[in-house]
Amino acid sequence: MWVTSSRSAQTSMGRVGLAGVTFLSGAGVGAFLSHLWRNRCGKEEEDRPGLLSRVPVIPVPGLPAIQASELTVSPGGSGAVMKYGFPSLANIKTRESYITSYDPRTRTASWVIERLNPTSLTGPSNRKFCDFKEDDSVHVFHRATNDDYRGSGFDRGHLAAAANHKWSQKAMDDTFYLSNVAPQNPNLNQNTWNNLEKLCRSLTKRYLNVYVCTGPLYLPSKEDDGKLYVRYQVIGQNHVAVPTHFFKVLILEQADGRGVELRSYVLPNQPIDDKVPLERFLVPIETIERASGLLFVPNIMKRTSSLQAIK
Amino acid sequence: MWVTSSRSAQTSMGRVGLAGVTFLSGAGVGAFLSHLWRNRCGKEEEDRPGLLSRVPVIPVPGLPAIQASELTVSPGGSGAVMKYGFPSLANIKTRESYITSYDPRTRTASWVIERLNPTSLTGPSNRKFCDFKEDDSVHVFHRATNDDYRGSGFDRGHLAAAANHKWSQKAMDDTFYLSNVAPQNPNLNQNTWNNLEKLCRSLTKRYLNVYVCTGPLYLPSKEDDGKLYVRYQVIGQNHVAVPTHFFKVLILEQADGRGVELRSYVLPNQPIDDKVPLERFLVPIETIERASGLLFVPNIMKRTSSLQAIK
Repeated sequence: MWVTSSRSAQTSMGRVGLAGVTFLSGAGVGAFLSHLWRNRCGKEEEDRPGLLSRVPVIPVPGLPAIQASELTVSPGGSGAVMKYGFPSLANIKTRESYITSYDPRTRTASWVIERLNPTSLTGPSNRKFCDFKEDDSVHVFHRATNDDYRGSGFDRGHLAAAANHKWSQKAMDDTFYLSNVAPQNPNLNQNTWNNLEKLCRSLTKRYLNVYVCTGPLYLPSKEDDGKLYVRYQVIGQNHVAVPTHFFKVLILEQADGRGVELRSYVLPNQPIDDKVPLERFLVPIETIERASGLLFVPNIMKRTSSLQAIK
Repeated sequence: MWVTSSRSAQTSMGRVGLAGVTFLSGAGVGAFLSHLWRNRCGKEEEDRPGLLSRVPVIPVPGLPAIQASELTVSPGGSGAVMKYGFPSLANIKTRESYITSYDPRTRTASWVIERLNPTSLTGPSNRKFCDFKEDDSVHVFHRATNDDYRGSGFDRGHLAAAANHKWSQKAMDDTFYLSNVAPQNPNLNQNTWNNLEKLCRSLTKRYLNVYVCTGPLYLPSKEDDGKLYVRYQVIGQNHVAVPTHFFKVLILEQADGRGVELRSYVLPNQPIDDKVPLERFLVPIETIERASGLLFVPNIMKRTSSLQAIK
């Protein structure tokens, strides 16, 4: 779908709404995605070549040019990160490098937003000075601990990535709160997920600012009885939820107010052959909005009055 | 556990914290409860006779007497309902008969709080004038519809019960929003759950006010691989979550400031032999606080400075 203005956005989303639901109902995004990349030599690949090449840059007259001052003060600071609003308003925590909404039931974040640009990516910080740590601001009943992860078979997967925040040791340290972490398949964490994080950083060469919103998903899949079930493991004494999938929503600001572009990815929390191009995990933003209970587009529209999204 | 003051409450909860987690880790509350009532003629019954009879009434000097005026204006009104705070602060909606926190991911409420007393239970309202209806205040992506329930095999189970709000037709109507509803096993809804709702109403004869907080739970259980999984069905085009369990937390205010008593129940979302006494579903409030991501006791303590809870 193309979202090109506030009014047409609502119309488009209404129109594709049922399709989005049907898509999810069929087998769940996870099964859909697995199917997609397992068949990457088949017809689907022919049908979906170079999705990114289909994203034109549409001039947005109404969008004011970004001021240089936004680049020089507190690269990942909260004032800057909230520019496009929050996808939900529960349990918001402001950190040096990101803003997050914590989900006390799953013991992990609902989402984490950070802003990347060349300034945020450079600096003397070193992750050897960082240790994963409990988030004292979360009630002890709802807090993940390092013990929960020990022996679980899952990595402590960063949501806001440490390497995105070299601009300040404190900013990097803050990414090591376990509230910014979710149980992640080690193969995924160390390969395809890492590649996606690198892609986000590399996009700072082409875009003025790269806003990255990352979070867990708990997607349903069809079981033998023909019904849809959400099923996810919980680990440790505190029952930390293991997401079935992860999303990343990228809000890409072009220089000189030439437009705002949206890319949204969903990756299953399982090993992925890292030869599969990341484009294969692009999904309509509506898919993430429906599955997560979050809303991105209405907030972004308030700020931009225009938006390009990949279907 | 006995919670008798703010300080000792924290200590007690710290002390039983690990036990609470271990209890959940073993097999999940659901399995635990099923085990409990399946073996109701066995040893466990001998161990847990008449839990309620073990709840003494402890005088609470610090608690001011309830004013008669609280009984005469808007029996279920929001000002009254919020007296003991909210167990979470996300997506709060104020209705004539209750206050609720909506969970857009599961398409149902996280919790619903209402206040019952003799005044709220009497009046000319009739449920034949009520129809279940979509909640327009919820974004269409995250809203349950009547179609989602049709043919699903689940009842539209009220969280705040209709019969609790006979004092006003509008108050009763408001309980028919699908945001105050969750998919419920029909046998449970029509028998044991109904009995629990009747118990809440009957308690208004003994207590000045009966605050009832109701919500869904999604509890883990151990599968064949020895690991814990949360697994729940989703129904309809909008993937409305079917809770594995439901909770009710009752905050019972005694007349003349003689004390506040807490009773918390967890029922599995499955048929229950209605000969099983409701006392068998009493659980420590901590169990619900851990599993739901909600907090009841800290808020109540702010108001009462003292509290009695059933272990």
